[in-house]
Amino acid sequence: MVVVGSVAYDGVETPHGKIDRMLGGSCTYVALSASFFTAPKIVAVVGDDFAAEDSELLAGRGIDLTGLERVPGKTFFWAGKYSPDMNDRETLVTDLNVFADFDPKLPEAYRSSPYVLLGNIQPGLQKSVRSQMDGSQRIVGGDTMNYWIADFREQLLATIAEWDFLLINDGEARMLSGEYNLKKAAAKILDMGPSTLVIKRGEHGAILWRRDGHFMAPGYLLRDVFDPTGAGDCFAGGFMGYLAGQGIDFHADRVDHNEIRRAVIYGSVMGSYCCERFGVERFRTLTRAEIDGRFEEFQEFTAF
Amino acid sequence: MVVVGSVAYDGVETPHGKIDRMLGGSCTYVALSASFFTAPKIVAVVGDDFAAEDSELLAGRGIDLTGLERVPGKTFFWAGKYSPDMNDRETLVTDLNVFADFDPKLPEAYRSSPYVLLGNIQPGLQKSVRSQMDGSQRIVGGDTMNYWIADFREQLLATIAEWDFLLINDGEARMLSGEYNLKKAAAKILDMGPSTLVIKRGEHGAILWRRDGHFMAPGYLLRDVFDPTGAGDCFAGGFMGYLAGQGIDFHADRVDHNEIRRAVIYGSVMGSYCCERFGVERFRTLTRAEIDGRFEEFQEFTAF
Repeated sequence: MVVVGSVAYDGVETPHGKIDRMLGGSCTYVALSASFFTAPKIVAVVGDDFAAEDSELLAGRGIDLTGLERVPGKTFFWAGKYSPDMNDRETLVTDLNVFADFDPKLPEAYRSSPYVLLGNIQPGLQKSVRSQMDGSQRIVGGDTMNYWIADFREQLLATIAEWDFLLINDGEARMLSGEYNLKKAAAKILDMGPSTLVIKRGEHGAILWRRDGHFMAPGYLLRDVFDPTGAGDCFAGGFMGYLAGQGIDFHADRVDHNEIRRAVIYGSVMGSYCCERFGVERFRTLTRAEIDGRFEEFQEFTAF
Repeated sequence: MVVVGSVAYDGVETPHGKIDRMLGGSCTYVALSASFFTAPKIVAVVGDDFAAEDSELLAGRGIDLTGLERVPGKTFFWAGKYSPDMNDRETLVTDLNVFADFDPKLPEAYRSSPYVLLGNIQPGLQKSVRSQMDGSQRIVGGDTMNYWIADFREQLLATIAEWDFLLINDGEARMLSGEYNLKKAAAKILDMGPSTLVIKRGEHGAILWRRDGHFMAPGYLLRDVFDPTGAGDCFAGGFMGYLAGQGIDFHADRVDHNEIRRAVIYGSVMGSYCCERFGVERFRTLTRAEIDGRFEEFQEFTAF
């Protein structure tokens, strides 16, 4: 499974504390989360300040760093502060640094990877990565954000037209479709190309949409949310990681819909674990048994 | 099943239209919703302007009107206007009229009713109704609102201490418990007396809490929400109506938790139907087969 996106340093302040600088970035969170299900290969860029211990954390989880480009300069830095209820955040610093010139180039060994997750970067770059793959992929999909939807709409539409799934939040789904109602929004987005759409609703869970119906997953109720940074990316990593681990092929004659539903639950599980500690901390100790335990909790509190 | 609350006339404006005056009130919605599962008996007050056709609608659904007091004066009138996304509403008029002196008195024949649902009225009145029952009840519970939580806290706590269940929304749960986190809020509220708590989250569904765990029900996704007025009351009517129809006794040695979970789903189904037309219109044509059909839809879009 190939993951493309940002590897960054983050400064984060939540009601539970403040960290000035720690490992972050969408590619980092997706890959760490997916690493519990499959062997991710990342494509990203960092500066010469990128710490050996951070590379080691990723490599230690079996993540292939062949596509992690190191260039002179500083690594992308982002800092933000969350509101008291942690439902909103304010961006304090966005220093793109070496990420400003990121032009993802896939190592030869990545091109036949059956799964590709394109993190939230400029849609033209996402399209370029897609075209570097050898065409044998089982599932290609990714993420986007309000900025690309508003200002790069045509490029974005051309990009997602080639995707098997799109993973966005409810506000982005409304913006992309021009429909407030989620049923109508989802129908319009499925007409844009992807056969599968996941709409994330933050603490309220996620909805999976395909032409033949939808599936609603509740959000896991944590007693304490320490830091929601990266939760959406961890959802994406768990979702795609599970599908990769199970060898699911969206282009097969018959796709087991229950496997896609389970992937949404695993995504939710990974997003919930992410919030339990600052940054990527929770993934240092997390085990597959804990993950499966929380999956079973989801079964317990949704059955009737 | 006894239902106590308001019978009113409502003026409602939503993005889909405007109705100057139509049948409404918490007791009306609860009883109409519950009437698809059991035979509700209402306790409420109306003025001499209360229309025969409105009495006939209620009686036609098998609702016992013995406890519907008619006094000189005007029926309670409320008017409100919804925001474009219908997640907020502004109250334009609240004319309590005859409801201002409402002092619910239970007809003799109501006192042994096994189920009592106390709608959102002053907590002291709710307590007085409870004390008029003969003590043989299987389930007693109800609703409250921010105003009583803030300004009648001691009376409210004394009232709900005697209840088997409490049904409130997330904002009210936070206000009542002083905890923002819903897991912590629910634990505190269960310590106040009720063995069962349902926290409604509007379009995001509802959470059922008991000491041994919780159950999460998603909100039904409608293509068009015409008028959300009464949806919470219809949830309450479906929830309690289903429990009454099944003969569930919260004081029994063993309570079938799956029945309580199903009651939450039936509550969600009734709340969703309520929103499909203005006011109580949808209940004129709704059938039990349609209700069970939507219950099955909930099973379909939540299973994994």
